[in-house]
Amino acid sequence: MMIENTWSRWGPDDERGSLNFIGPDQVRRATALVQTGEVLRLAQLLSSKTPVPSHRCGLQHFMGRDGGDYAAGAGRPGGFQFAEDSVIMPLHIGTHVDALCHAWYDDKLFNGFSSHTVRSTTGASKLGVEKMPPIVTRGVLLDMVRVRGRVLVPGEVVSRADLEAAAALAGLQIERGDAVLLRTGWLESQKGVKNVSFDVEPGIDVDAARWLAEREVAVVGADNFAVEVLPFATGAVFPVHQLLIRDFGVPLLEGLMLDPLVASGRFEFLFVASALPIVGATGSPLAPVAVL
Amino acid sequence: MMIENTWSRWGPDDERGSLNFIGPDQVRRATALVQTGEVLRLAQLLSSKTPVPSHRCGLQHFMGRDGGDYAAGAGRPGGFQFAEDSVIMPLHIGTHVDALCHAWYDDKLFNGFSSHTVRSTTGASKLGVEKMPPIVTRGVLLDMVRVRGRVLVPGEVVSRADLEAAAALAGLQIERGDAVLLRTGWLESQKGVKNVSFDVEPGIDVDAARWLAEREVAVVGADNFAVEVLPFATGAVFPVHQLLIRDFGVPLLEGLMLDPLVASGRFEFLFVASALPIVGATGSPLAPVAVL
Amino acid sequence: MMIENTWSRWGPDDERGSLNFIGPDQVRRATALVQTGEVLRLAQLLSSKTPVPSHRCGLQHFMGRDGGDYAAGAGRPGGFQFAEDSVIMPLHIGTHVDALCHAWYDDKLFNGFSSHTVRSTTGASKLGVEKMPPIVTRGVLLDMVRVRGRVLVPGEVVSRADLEAAAALAGLQIERGDAVLLRTGWLESQKGVKNVSFDVEPGIDVDAARWLAEREVAVVGADNFAVEVLPFATGAVFPVHQLLIRDFGVPLLEGLMLDPLVASGRFEFLFVASALPIVGATGSPLAPVAVL
Amino acid sequence: MMIENTWSRWGPDDERGSLNFIGPDQVRRATALVQTGEVLRLAQLLSSKTPVPSHRCGLQHFMGRDGGDYAAGAGRPGGFQFAEDSVIMPLHIGTHVDALCHAWYDDKLFNGFSSHTVRSTTGASKLGVEKMPPIVTRGVLLDMVRVRGRVLVPGEVVSRADLEAAAALAGLQIERGDAVLLRTGWLESQKGVKNVSFDVEPGIDVDAARWLAEREVAVVGADNFAVEVLPFATGAVFPVHQLLIRDFGVPLLEGLMLDPLVASGRFEFLFVASALPIVGATGSPLAPVAVL
Repeated sequence: MMIENTWSRWGPDDERGSLNFIGPDQVRRATALVQTGEVLRLAQLLSSKTPVPSHRCGLQHFMGRDGGDYAAGAGRPGGFQFAEDSVIMPLHIGTHVDALCHAWYDDKLFNGFSSHTVRSTTGASKLGVEKMPPIVTRGVLLDMVRVRGRVLVPGEVVSRADLEAAAALAGLQIERGDAVLLRTGWLESQKGVKNVSFDVEPGIDVDAARWLAEREVAVVGADNFAVEVLPFATGAVFPVHQLLIRDFGVPLLEGLMLDPLVASGRFEFLFVASALPIVGATGSPLAPVAVL
Repeated sequence: MMIENTWSRWGPDDERGSLNFIGPDQVRRATALVQTGEVLRLAQLLSSKTPVPSHRCGLQHFMGRDGGDYAAGAGRPGGFQFAEDSVIMPLHIGTHVDALCHAWYDDKLFNGFSSHTVRSTTGASKLGVEKMPPIVTRGVLLDMVRVRGRVLVPGEVVSRADLEAAAALAGLQIERGDAVLLRTGWLESQKGVKNVSFDVEPGIDVDAARWLAEREVAVVGADNFAVEVLPFATGAVFPVHQLLIRDFGVPLLEGLMLDPLVASGRFEFLFVASALPIVGATGSPLAPVAVL
Repeated sequence: MMIENTWSRWGPDDERGSLNFIGPDQVRRATALVQTGEVLRLAQLLSSKTPVPSHRCGLQHFMGRDGGDYAAGAGRPGGFQFAEDSVIMPLHIGTHVDALCHAWYDDKLFNGFSSHTVRSTTGASKLGVEKMPPIVTRGVLLDMVRVRGRVLVPGEVVSRADLEAAAALAGLQIERGDAVLLRTGWLESQKGVKNVSFDVEPGIDVDAARWLAEREVAVVGADNFAVEVLPFATGAVFPVHQLLIRDFGVPLLEGLMLDPLVASGRFEFLFVASALPIVGATGSPLAPVAVL
Repeated sequence: MMIENTWSRWGPDDERGSLNFIGPDQVRRATALVQTGEVLRLAQLLSSKTPVPSHRCGLQHFMGRDGGDYAAGAGRPGGFQFAEDSVIMPLHIGTHVDALCHAWYDDKLFNGFSSHTVRSTTGASKLGVEKMPPIVTRGVLLDMVRVRGRVLVPGEVVSRADLEAAAALAGLQIERGDAVLLRTGWLESQKGVKNVSFDVEPGIDVDAARWLAEREVAVVGADNFAVEVLPFATGAVFPVHQLLIRDFGVPLLEGLMLDPLVASGRFEFLFVASALPIVGATGSPLAPVAVL
């Protein structure tokens, strides 16, 4: 029998969803994978040039004090000089996590929380990104570019069978608590593109998403913007978001920069991702780490 | 002979400073420390209530779309609903890292880079936070509250001898590449305080900072706002920032939330901290992780 | 018979409310008042020091490029140098107008528009500040400080009789289309105060507000933060906002800097106030002008 | 003899420049021009859709509280409901004024102030927009579209002779203290254009700018983005900005929405423009008013 969701699996108050699949065993197994001690950052640089969908404004970085001020005569008490700065940014920018309050349907969020809990005044009082513990688990790279022998084209579907083929190619089984990282080649194909389109990209379909949920993975990441294929394979709108985030409580990692990982030749590794604990936020940029 | 700084130790172009002390050996040693598989987040929550010094404005979190909009009739194509949000924040807020471009003197940053490289138009073109690799190393807790048997009082100096006492109490030697985390008790003593003062706090003095630099630690963190004692023990302004950041290239982790670590009873652990790679930024909030 | 509101007085689609009381006659009458040609700005300076209620963050002003950057070596093509900047601010800051979508009750805004028209995604699609035409009309100063012979104290009520006394002292009748500016002395009494309280201040009560609405004034301004007395004279919450804005469609001008007007000795004058036409905004800072 | 600038004309401390040309006589003359009492707003709407040059981020408008929150169950003490909001915007957006600290050359601003007075930490401590008094004077429309019989094309120069022809067509002399508003047709030609170019537009050349300065006008406005022709007619960069703002202390009004004025058929009128008094800012959006 196909389960419909994981609501109430961890009790009516649970706000961690599939991250509950990561227990001490998964953590120890993951840290035991470390061989060379090489550390990789799987994140895009963040700046005003980081692409964002056209309905969002990109990152703005402002210096409140800088070296120019001293050059222009600012005082330096006791010789001391410093610089400081601020940012304005949408939270779903660059490499980021979608928290469980980010997407839903029928006025119900994951675990049955009402959508009325997500307001302008308070942000998300349930399932906010601050409720996500740091992710420390085994990372598994599913490299569709290697499966296909080419970068996937916009709109190309990654199916359940494709995921199985990628796992086979890696010589791995997807296991409970894994962080599954999908390479479609999308991000690397966007280098130097001026007006990046966020409307068409390769990604998984609903059936592939269900396969991942059935494997009880902790988190699904990809090197594209939405994890799922755009435009949507079915008539639904963001059906993979609906299934993974809302039905199964699986947070998504989007915009992963997988180049250094691909270059390493490794398919499994210690994976660490720790979001900014912004109270009531629907997501957060972050800089995930692979330790080889 | 006392060395004055570590400039040019890793070449004239180096922008990593003491993080160079973390090599594959340090990483492997650190991951091998994992025993129970427990994962701790060593970060303050980020919200408009997160205290900031009075010359800075705190975090603002704005919902661009939320559950209220749907309650008021916003369309839900294909049933899909979502929420998204933005933040405005100073980068030295909550638990954050000071990048090597944050503080200096005599118009020279670490490794001799000119302060003219830090501008409004570009941010820091040298030593920006995006140049810091993720930190994966051994974490060592130096618990001054346990040494003293009480929370330290504002203005109380933590000396070289105090650090040695804390290391002895932990039964550990400080080694090359360590992340040294200092507990003064300051943050826990501020709980519920309405107007947190950032002008007076316990912390290390210059001599203690030099002791850490001589041990070749990778990074120094603390549960206070400035790592160093305020007001300054000597006539200088932020002398510990000057010595650690500018002379020795040691980034600082400020505002660490050490409560869960203290509760665990552990003094050494796998420590992971990965800043947002904001191009040209002088720092970044982050959520460091201890794995026990 | 007491009218309850002015809904539908100008048709079911009207979004101008009492500003409809200003017609060409009122404009010509107002410009004919000019005698000396002196021009006064009735606005507070805007900066990070401009007081705001504690639940709002104040103005932040960031330079994107400045003279310091050139001092530090920024290029100056063809000799040209420039500076530019951005602001972040709440719209109800300093001297500002409350648009008709700012306050309401029972889910109905002025003229019966549903409160569902005010959303995160769109702002206010009805009664936004951009729907307010520039205000050009006769200004009348009602100087309660002169009536009382002293600055009013926090919580002191300005009643209908007080307004009548102030008009008599000015030798004026309040007429249709007037901009009535009330001086309580509050703003001038806050000079140099560090933590300005926005919870207690002198201002009008509901009955005085009704008197103004009955006179068919176009707009009501004051040198305090809420026009109305705080704490509220009755059990209701912001009852004057409810009556003037929601029932009678009268926008409010708050935080007026009346000092130069008081110094001039004039009680009637040409008054001009033109808000930033921010689409869907609930208000706007502005710099009203009196021409004597 | 050609004068080179108006520095020190109003003393070494002057920060008002050509606005000094508006005295009580000019104000009375201007208010006496009012005939019909019609009031026009000469400003673009401000929203995320307001075009900005690609190196700037546009306006962002965030609701902190709105009708959706009440629909989702937010409390309404005493029945009261309200909405509030914030904006983030560059100050040179939409219809705005360039303050005298916005542009200069050779490290000297208007009246000889050092460019070192413009810093990240303080903004412009000299010639900031808050130093500009409200502008109340005669407005004169110079309608180049009517002179040419067509909208001007990008890059088309408006010369001294063109301005003279436009004044003759209006039957007016340009006089001391005037606000000269130039219609090129640029803004109206951009309606519905998706990616507005700010690199090419019709406007005045340096000689025409000098002609205006010699007439001792108070302010020069236009319906384009830079007042001056782009690309620059000479080898210099923004030569009209250099001459008008820096040499002659003439602020510029950019992005004027002149459609309603053109429709009125009036060439002279009462003109009022009052910038937000943001301390140390290089400009401000505003909503100028013409009274017919």
